[in-house]
Amino acid sequence: MQTEQLEKEFEAEKERFISEWKELLSFPSISTERKHDGDCTACAQWLRDHLRGIGFEAVLLETSTKPVIFAERTGLPGKPTILFYGHYDVQPVDPLEKWLIPPFRPELKDGRMYARGAQDNKGQLFYMLKALETLVNQNALEPTVKLVIEGEEESGSTAISEGLTDWKKMLAADVLIVTDTNTVVSGAPTIIMGLRGLVHATVEISGPSHDLHSGVHGGAAPNPAQEIARLISSFHNADGSIAVAGFYDEVRQPTSRERKLANTGTFDKKSYQLQTGVAPSAGEAEFTPAERTGFRPSIDINGLHSGYDGDGVKTIIPARATAKITSRLVPDQDPARVLEQIVEHVQEFDARGLRVEITDSGMAGPGFRLDPDSTLAGKAARILEDILGGETVFLWEGASIPIIPALAEISGAEPLLVGFGSEEDNIHAPNESFSLDRFRYGYLYCARMLCSL
Amino acid sequence: MQTEQLEKEFEAEKERFISEWKELLSFPSISTERKHDGDCTACAQWLRDHLRGIGFEAVLLETSTKPVIFAERTGLPGKPTILFYGHYDVQPVDPLEKWLIPPFRPELKDGRMYARGAQDNKGQLFYMLKALETLVNQNALEPTVKLVIEGEEESGSTAISEGLTDWKKMLAADVLIVTDTNTVVSGAPTIIMGLRGLVHATVEISGPSHDLHSGVHGGAAPNPAQEIARLISSFHNADGSIAVAGFYDEVRQPTSRERKLANTGTFDKKSYQLQTGVAPSAGEAEFTPAERTGFRPSIDINGLHSGYDGDGVKTIIPARATAKITSRLVPDQDPARVLEQIVEHVQEFDARGLRVEITDSGMAGPGFRLDPDSTLAGKAARILEDILGGETVFLWEGASIPIIPALAEISGAEPLLVGFGSEEDNIHAPNESFSLDRFRYGYLYCARMLCSL
Repeated sequence: MQTEQLEKEFEAEKERFISEWKELLSFPSISTERKHDGDCTACAQWLRDHLRGIGFEAVLLETSTKPVIFAERTGLPGKPTILFYGHYDVQPVDPLEKWLIPPFRPELKDGRMYARGAQDNKGQLFYMLKALETLVNQNALEPTVKLVIEGEEESGSTAISEGLTDWKKMLAADVLIVTDTNTVVSGAPTIIMGLRGLVHATVEISGPSHDLHSGVHGGAAPNPAQEIARLISSFHNADGSIAVAGFYDEVRQPTSRERKLANTGTFDKKSYQLQTGVAPSAGEAEFTPAERTGFRPSIDINGLHSGYDGDGVKTIIPARATAKITSRLVPDQDPARVLEQIVEHVQEFDARGLRVEITDSGMAGPGFRLDPDSTLAGKAARILEDILGGETVFLWEGASIPIIPALAEISGAEPLLVGFGSEEDNIHAPNESFSLDRFRYGYLYCARMLCSL
Repeated sequence: MQTEQLEKEFEAEKERFISEWKELLSFPSISTERKHDGDCTACAQWLRDHLRGIGFEAVLLETSTKPVIFAERTGLPGKPTILFYGHYDVQPVDPLEKWLIPPFRPELKDGRMYARGAQDNKGQLFYMLKALETLVNQNALEPTVKLVIEGEEESGSTAISEGLTDWKKMLAADVLIVTDTNTVVSGAPTIIMGLRGLVHATVEISGPSHDLHSGVHGGAAPNPAQEIARLISSFHNADGSIAVAGFYDEVRQPTSRERKLANTGTFDKKSYQLQTGVAPSAGEAEFTPAERTGFRPSIDINGLHSGYDGDGVKTIIPARATAKITSRLVPDQDPARVLEQIVEHVQEFDARGLRVEITDSGMAGPGFRLDPDSTLAGKAARILEDILGGETVFLWEGASIPIIPALAEISGAEPLLVGFGSEEDNIHAPNESFSLDRFRYGYLYCARMLCSL
């Protein structure tokens, strides 16, 4: 189908699309909060039934945690198989008092849908379903299409990770479509060419049996707050590079083509500063900011806590100190190996006799990079440019969707990551929203892409 | 009066002493908590009336905050003037649930008085009052005795600090007796030969307009938690010494006699470890632990906070980080100069473009050291050895009673610091207590000391 015809379909069905989208958004499917387990299941059932309604065979896969939806519609022989990945769970809503509407009573205002999940990922999932529906109704869906929709993207992807091997045959595909991503500038054609992986660890330094008097003991007793500060400082060199032994051993260098594409107009220092409040002054000076987040691994401290945090003075040597550490990985770093390197670095640290323990650690997944010159990427770029105008930007993202590499490997499919999110959508924050315009772009892109395969 | 006669007096009056002491302990005179302002005043009035009852002229000095009690009894001509310093305010009682009795309903159990303030400082103040009472009643009090008792020792000593200059004439004395200190081992004869001074500062590092996504920005945006860790690490050298420029310039070296006395059996590594949970592994290796806390200045981090502190992982670059810093000073460091050096150190720190601010700072007072070979110290040592047995230990303490140097200077008096506190008393903690034995030692010591002057 062509864009013009799809636009007509969209206009004709728009009110129904919106009302169904609101139904989907009204489930408080917060996966991290136990009390919403029932809401998650109800949301999964609604999606299963909706998929059946638009012509798919759909089931809930039973798991040890939240159900995973699997749906399939067999296409014409000789046509490729498309696998779509999405998630129906959403982030928590606190701080609730900052919301202008109740987060699970969706409202369309000034062309934007407001609700938790309006964009991430229910909005970007639902335009795909509506594109599929239109193609089925118009007898225009030629490939075999499979959908796998999990309910734990926001809380560790346990069920889907555990199930992948058992579902290998079922998930086999040629192309893996993911729409859970952003455009570089709202509405600009953007294809994500890579995501980073993630490992995490929590470190605790302790020793004093209680908070010690800093007068009586200052200069004699070792101080956990000071030792954890030294440990944290030891993760980076003065030039911004990471000092953990072996950390860079497996890092794949970007090709000159990748470096060139990554630096083509995607990064503007002024707007970075406006958006974040800071200049991109961290990391390795020999790489541009876009290269540092796209091609280089990083270590960040996400939390650091020790001792007194009230007004005035409390003269103590704190009994303990904790730091939460995450590392973003790039190809070909092995998450298990990197986590081991970090643990070794921590264990080798001499904390003046204090106890140093890793109290929690884990791996979310590896990083990956795609080929910007693949036929699939080229096809997507042309479709995006046709719908949106302008030239496609290839973006190597610093963030992670940890399940993608495993899903690509088990299904044998080539990933294609094109989404229509934007910083202004406030995902993971109060007053999340998604513009109807970008919902429509997503619908057009999905339908055109499916027709082109 | 001799010890035997004093002991008889004590036995005869013990029940009354205990019941009066309980009365004093029943005032919840917590100076840091606004709601207890009235209780502080009531406690001060009770003490004023009590002092009048035992033969002193006593008044409440009006101040901008809590009243200060001043009392005086003129002695025989030619006899010296003694100034006694104490405080009637106490520490807060939280966590209340850990108390085995209500903190302001004193109970005597197994020879120990339990209540907030039982030792610090109401207990160690009250044995002095009872010693004075006995001497007055026996017509044995020869020196002129003055008492200044403040209500803000636990909250910054505002009123007494502001009033000192105005009260110069009134406070003039030859000897300044302070009993707000500990013995080196419970009941061992101990004279405190020095205390350290104190300055404090709170540092904040900020920049990001909100917590940033550590995937999107990790390796590009500077991280306040990491920069504050680097800043904190920069306060100390690898050898445990302090790296702040000029910090040691004015530090007075201990004499060889002071070093010898400080190292004479006062420090036992095993009991230190039992008591604190750690070995005395911090500070400058070229000094012993007793020297490090007694003669060397220190810098400690009392609190360190940034970002996430919950379970699991939150992938953020925190918007801000704070550190609470205190420094203990020795003679002849000037608190204002040291605070300036710390502020300069912080301001010169390059936090990769992040904002570094001192959000709060202050000076509590300088450190001081006394002469172990003074006639006064010798006299006190002989009396202590006579009452307690054993040899007197001269202790250079790491802690601070910030008002003492100023009080000594304004009064012109030589300080004498002998108290009977012990680690087991749980001062500043739940279930504070003070043994009746040590209350009696304090009574005997005060009376004997007053008779000897």
